[in-house]
Amino acid sequence: MTQYQAFRVELKDRVAHVAIHRPEKINAMNAAFWDEIVDIFRWVDETDEARVVVLSGDGQHFSAGIDLQLLAQAATQLGDDVGRNADRLRRQILKLQASFNAVDECCKPVIAAIQGYCLGGAIDLIAACDMRYCTLDAQFSIKEIDMGMAADVGTLQRLPRIIGDGMMRELAYTGRMVDGREAQAIGLVNRTYADRGELTDAVQALASEIAAKSPIAIRGTKQMIRYMRDHRVDDGLEYIATWNAAMLQSADLKVAMAAHMSKQKPDFAD
Amino acid sequence: MTQYQAFRVELKDRVAHVAIHRPEKINAMNAAFWDEIVDIFRWVDETDEARVVVLSGDGQHFSAGIDLQLLAQAATQLGDDVGRNADRLRRQILKLQASFNAVDECCKPVIAAIQGYCLGGAIDLIAACDMRYCTLDAQFSIKEIDMGMAADVGTLQRLPRIIGDGMMRELAYTGRMVDGREAQAIGLVNRTYADRGELTDAVQALASEIAAKSPIAIRGTKQMIRYMRDHRVDDGLEYIATWNAAMLQSADLKVAMAAHMSKQKPDFAD
Amino acid sequence: MTQYQAFRVELKDRVAHVAIHRPEKINAMNAAFWDEIVDIFRWVDETDEARVVVLSGDGQHFSAGIDLQLLAQAATQLGDDVGRNADRLRRQILKLQASFNAVDECCKPVIAAIQGYCLGGAIDLIAACDMRYCTLDAQFSIKEIDMGMAADVGTLQRLPRIIGDGMMRELAYTGRMVDGREAQAIGLVNRTYADRGELTDAVQALASEIAAKSPIAIRGTKQMIRYMRDHRVDDGLEYIATWNAAMLQSADLKVAMAAHMSKQKPDFAD
Amino acid sequence: MTQYQAFRVELKDRVAHVAIHRPEKINAMNAAFWDEIVDIFRWVDETDEARVVVLSGDGQHFSAGIDLQLLAQAATQLGDDVGRNADRLRRQILKLQASFNAVDECCKPVIAAIQGYCLGGAIDLIAACDMRYCTLDAQFSIKEIDMGMAADVGTLQRLPRIIGDGMMRELAYTGRMVDGREAQAIGLVNRTYADRGELTDAVQALASEIAAKSPIAIRGTKQMIRYMRDHRVDDGLEYIATWNAAMLQSADLKVAMAAHMSKQKPDFAD
Amino acid sequence: MTQYQAFRVELKDRVAHVAIHRPEKINAMNAAFWDEIVDIFRWVDETDEARVVVLSGDGQHFSAGIDLQLLAQAATQLGDDVGRNADRLRRQILKLQASFNAVDECCKPVIAAIQGYCLGGAIDLIAACDMRYCTLDAQFSIKEIDMGMAADVGTLQRLPRIIGDGMMRELAYTGRMVDGREAQAIGLVNRTYADRGELTDAVQALASEIAAKSPIAIRGTKQMIRYMRDHRVDDGLEYIATWNAAMLQSADLKVAMAAHMSKQKPDFAD
Amino acid sequence: MTQYQAFRVELKDRVAHVAIHRPEKINAMNAAFWDEIVDIFRWVDETDEARVVVLSGDGQHFSAGIDLQLLAQAATQLGDDVGRNADRLRRQILKLQASFNAVDECCKPVIAAIQGYCLGGAIDLIAACDMRYCTLDAQFSIKEIDMGMAADVGTLQRLPRIIGDGMMRELAYTGRMVDGREAQAIGLVNRTYADRGELTDAVQALASEIAAKSPIAIRGTKQMIRYMRDHRVDDGLEYIATWNAAMLQSADLKVAMAAHMSKQKPDFAD
Repeated sequence: MTQYQAFRVELKDRVAHVAIHRPEKINAMNAAFWDEIVDIFRWVDETDEARVVVLSGDGQHFSAGIDLQLLAQAATQLGDDVGRNADRLRRQILKLQASFNAVDECCKPVIAAIQGYCLGGAIDLIAACDMRYCTLDAQFSIKEIDMGMAADVGTLQRLPRIIGDGMMRELAYTGRMVDGREAQAIGLVNRTYADRGELTDAVQALASEIAAKSPIAIRGTKQMIRYMRDHRVDDGLEYIATWNAAMLQSADLKVAMAAHMSKQKPDFAD
Repeated sequence: MTQYQAFRVELKDRVAHVAIHRPEKINAMNAAFWDEIVDIFRWVDETDEARVVVLSGDGQHFSAGIDLQLLAQAATQLGDDVGRNADRLRRQILKLQASFNAVDECCKPVIAAIQGYCLGGAIDLIAACDMRYCTLDAQFSIKEIDMGMAADVGTLQRLPRIIGDGMMRELAYTGRMVDGREAQAIGLVNRTYADRGELTDAVQALASEIAAKSPIAIRGTKQMIRYMRDHRVDDGLEYIATWNAAMLQSADLKVAMAAHMSKQKPDFAD
Repeated sequence: MTQYQAFRVELKDRVAHVAIHRPEKINAMNAAFWDEIVDIFRWVDETDEARVVVLSGDGQHFSAGIDLQLLAQAATQLGDDVGRNADRLRRQILKLQASFNAVDECCKPVIAAIQGYCLGGAIDLIAACDMRYCTLDAQFSIKEIDMGMAADVGTLQRLPRIIGDGMMRELAYTGRMVDGREAQAIGLVNRTYADRGELTDAVQALASEIAAKSPIAIRGTKQMIRYMRDHRVDDGLEYIATWNAAMLQSADLKVAMAAHMSKQKPDFAD
Repeated sequence: MTQYQAFRVELKDRVAHVAIHRPEKINAMNAAFWDEIVDIFRWVDETDEARVVVLSGDGQHFSAGIDLQLLAQAATQLGDDVGRNADRLRRQILKLQASFNAVDECCKPVIAAIQGYCLGGAIDLIAACDMRYCTLDAQFSIKEIDMGMAADVGTLQRLPRIIGDGMMRELAYTGRMVDGREAQAIGLVNRTYADRGELTDAVQALASEIAAKSPIAIRGTKQMIRYMRDHRVDDGLEYIATWNAAMLQSADLKVAMAAHMSKQKPDFAD
Repeated sequence: MTQYQAFRVELKDRVAHVAIHRPEKINAMNAAFWDEIVDIFRWVDETDEARVVVLSGDGQHFSAGIDLQLLAQAATQLGDDVGRNADRLRRQILKLQASFNAVDECCKPVIAAIQGYCLGGAIDLIAACDMRYCTLDAQFSIKEIDMGMAADVGTLQRLPRIIGDGMMRELAYTGRMVDGREAQAIGLVNRTYADRGELTDAVQALASEIAAKSPIAIRGTKQMIRYMRDHRVDDGLEYIATWNAAMLQSADLKVAMAAHMSKQKPDFAD
Repeated sequence: MTQYQAFRVELKDRVAHVAIHRPEKINAMNAAFWDEIVDIFRWVDETDEARVVVLSGDGQHFSAGIDLQLLAQAATQLGDDVGRNADRLRRQILKLQASFNAVDECCKPVIAAIQGYCLGGAIDLIAACDMRYCTLDAQFSIKEIDMGMAADVGTLQRLPRIIGDGMMRELAYTGRMVDGREAQAIGLVNRTYADRGELTDAVQALASEIAAKSPIAIRGTKQMIRYMRDHRVDDGLEYIATWNAAMLQSADLKVAMAAHMSKQKPDFAD
């Protein structure tokens, strides 16, 4: 397994555990973070054995968001011409976005397990995951507003599809803290747990359950749900028909049917 | 009234009652089901007297989804060439989808009343209805994942617009059971009732209430809400302006206004 | 400050207070209302000092919706040719829609504070606001259905993005009353308050909080959330990258950073 | 082969010849025409042996467009209520459109061979074909404008993608005649022939050539070009990747490769 | 008739003649131009008697594009903060765009008659017209590239739909001159005339011809062609069905039919 | 300058010359080709000095398209499960597409210079370029149809926007050869030259001309034209307004203005 500076990565029983590992910096997202996350999710995509990803943060907090040093450094690289600065900034933003697109576009489900702070860029990150679970004392905030900027790596794009439009605006304009209970009430997380131990167990159990399903079926399902975030119902129906035209010829249906008949657990190839 | 093999259909007091009627097979969707549902909803569309549809399942359960014999039969029809098989499968899927599109595109509101099992294809079906109501002991599951396939007749396309994105993915990846109470909490159904009697009464009352409204107004309202599922706000505004350019010239406005003035119930033509 | 016939407008501490002021007519929306609201929101857009808008209704009720006299008058202007009538009606509807588009497109956040009746056109209006807050005894109803028509100034276009699809249809087909508590449960309002005093205080506090943020950041945030209502995630990401290419060169980031370092409140230019 | 009232249909050497056959009425499109064309193209879709369609008009002219008696009859069916009339007319138009959608959506290429008049509804029809060829003396006109109406069965929707936008508007506003030479210059037809004999030979040769190609490849190609008329480049790329994921597993590639190696004509299964 | 500073406007025989009238400045587009064009086209929209617009430039040239003084002035209004400057510039650009949107969205056809120079902003303008005709010695150039900027009032948005994509890019990157003959070859104009006299006569004849058609039919036709520039074929078909649901109830169809029967010219009401 | 196996790359006078360099294999696209083209265009994107790209093929022909050995090899990697094969093929196609997306998305204009054969994949490639120029004896063919497959790396997606829809279908269904003259007539190339020497000179002159323009202006222009291929006019107008909000603050406008005043050639920074 490759070693990373900002992450701790492990593949166990078909579940890839990806943990942000800069606990002494509240898992702030530094330069290494933004590069490595792309490599990690490419590896997940290409590794058939990895069927599900659990994304977490080591230490007391999930993540405090982008490392302010990174922002400060970007500012120092600007020159005199506003137009050329704009061109450079635009590319840098697109590059940062690409890091979280890698999470969003990963063909395996990504489950976020969140405790403590989940601020700024960390919201952008979990909005790119498939599902979110947290402890009661988790603290969410769209912090970018207090940095004098509109969030630009995904929160404003992906979160409105996850939580209600009215609450979305309140949170984005004020940057106020949301705890675990409210996060569940507004649909930001699927479920809340009393403490980190319970959270870890529950997420592990969920990951294992999904890892036991047909990889062909899971992949198609994720692809379609992602597709529907941005497409029409009729386009989605046509797309799944074309997709399943090939996938229904897979052995996984027979494996599933045989298991169903014999009332045993199916065992799907990677 | 036409007789159907898989359905029991009745038109009473402007409400069309469409019940899946294969209780001994847990209302599994067989070949007759997929054909007849298209005819039934075409009849609803063309019958001015039918102003609202109540869709239900006879017996203890709403429906166990697609009949496995139908799937097994489809598998036997495949030949040697993967490409030609894909072409055949693609058409079959599109044909099945068309059955539920007939429900979705019906110009009258369709209310689903659900008790007991509502599994696999049955979720695809109720996602194509306007509104859903159920008993507390209803059991919902996106069962397709356990057949080794991605759902392909509408669940993955329509449900994300109805329930939250995060919970959508959890349910689609795991296929776990959701009961009536949770179904209401996540927006899958509008309301839950203690038992089947209460459910039937409530849905009947709702259907009657809607049946008493202006058919012109109901039709326009449904058309617009459906349109907005897939279109931009500005396109929707332009569309309703064009639509109402004709419909505001209808007598129904005068009937409504007169009733409003005289504080009596309006009586709209079919 | 300009004087208006249908509104009371005030700018205080960077918050524009816009109150519908026809309390003796339950704030029904007359001809003056539809014209003046465009002027008011243009003024808000062009007045840098106005950073947030609070929209309310004077008297016991928020608003009973469109003035029926206006509708009656429109009906009298129709001639003999159905086609030419349609052309005229279409333009009138587009013109009414433009009044609420002015609210929706306003580049400053608009907060609606609602008590008592909020009926018909008033729902169209609050659906064009950023966020909604109400008293417990507020009464919401998509009243248009009882006038024999499909709502055509925004409710059917904007509300489905705010509340759940299933409940949206129930409310639009039946026109039934929704009180404050249910409004919060379905996401129609963000929060409910015991009485008008509490509502006013809470909304004022929220408005002040937002008014203290960077205007550049607030504007970008609103622009992006609006954009995402109708666009794809990838388009949204590209758009914010282009937007922030200029905006990250603003002084507001430095002001925010300095305040963050010195743990003081930032003071942003208008 | 089924007998039709408005058509003459023949399947020969894998080419389906579909000729409008009301020469004494300048092939005007009567009630039978609109119904039968749907049946014919469904038959083409389901008949593997039919690989290409040649659409033509028997007699001196291709077609004079919709039969005026049909229009007159529709007018007599209208009642007193403008709204209910609108509802009826809207459905009738959608039904007529469906007849030409059957041509557009046919999964085999459709080649139009045109001589003499091609007026009004006939333009709507050929705009739904894949390619158009004509004699020098062909006469095209968007005649609807002179009936006091905007064309509503496809010309205004499909033709702008085929000919230039500027010329499109000139022809639609004036209804002026376009002869074969100009039709080729503006891209309305691919090629012009001196007389009907040459036209028939050339179209037959083209049809035979296409009929000899891999049906899998032709079908995919048509599907993609149709898809691109309405979709983004990135969506199109993703769609063909999903499509070819199945189709590249077809035997047709091996047949083609073997023929290429042996420098012989490939012989593809239907 | 209102008097304008930058235009000469006349309504004669149902044709509105709108001429840019700053011949001594090569019809450069000054502040008055951008404001007045909005008023003029609003007047056209609201004046039933005006059925077609002919847009021309007085003097030797059509127009040299935006007045450089206007640009220079805009530059002087910028302050120190890049972000606030960006906000101001963005609004100014949107405001200029609105001037040409008024042309594009005008519900009557707009015919451009072009002689001599047609440079920079003048290309943006004619791209917003329905059809373009010119003299042989007309000179077109996408001049903005030589001002160090990307054209931002419509050329890059509307022209690719009118001329071929490959040539579009060549012209936009190089700003090279295109004469009348080439303009016709690439579809930029519909036809070219030997001199100004012939051009004027031909455009006048065309305008008169269109002015004699049913205003209801012309309006619907323009609306649909504009709609198709940005929408899918299926959306367009649904839209025209809804549109014609009202418009086919107009008297114009009967007027047209009667004229057709009696072989006389129809006379449609405004 | 990096050395490549399948390309010869040179940067001279601000023009990047990228030549496919496998003349002994008719520049067939092998594995190295598909990888290296991504690197080359990333380098172009990141190299400010490279302002324009000229893409050509060394030897007698531009390119014969994909190397058949590559296709044959892909076929050998397939396993027993149709579903897993489909997943693998889908990824391979997406990866090949990414190679030409790199050309399409390059922020500098790419000019294709074509002589001799331009077959199959070579059409996909030139469709991703900005503009195309060729010799009279160039030979174009959408060859994929004769390999038993639908083209899947861009031809069917991008070419319909460049040439007419009717001719597009004829060429895609038949795979017939198109020479230089016809290529120009249908808009596939902008201009045709007598021989390779003239072609090279003309393309070099064009490249130099574009390289002398403001890089800020060229980049924005390309971005906008690409954007419009897939977006609505109103979205495009909003996007350029946001883009130019930053870019009009660039020094390039002043440089251009000063040069204009002094009637000298402007000299823009990279």
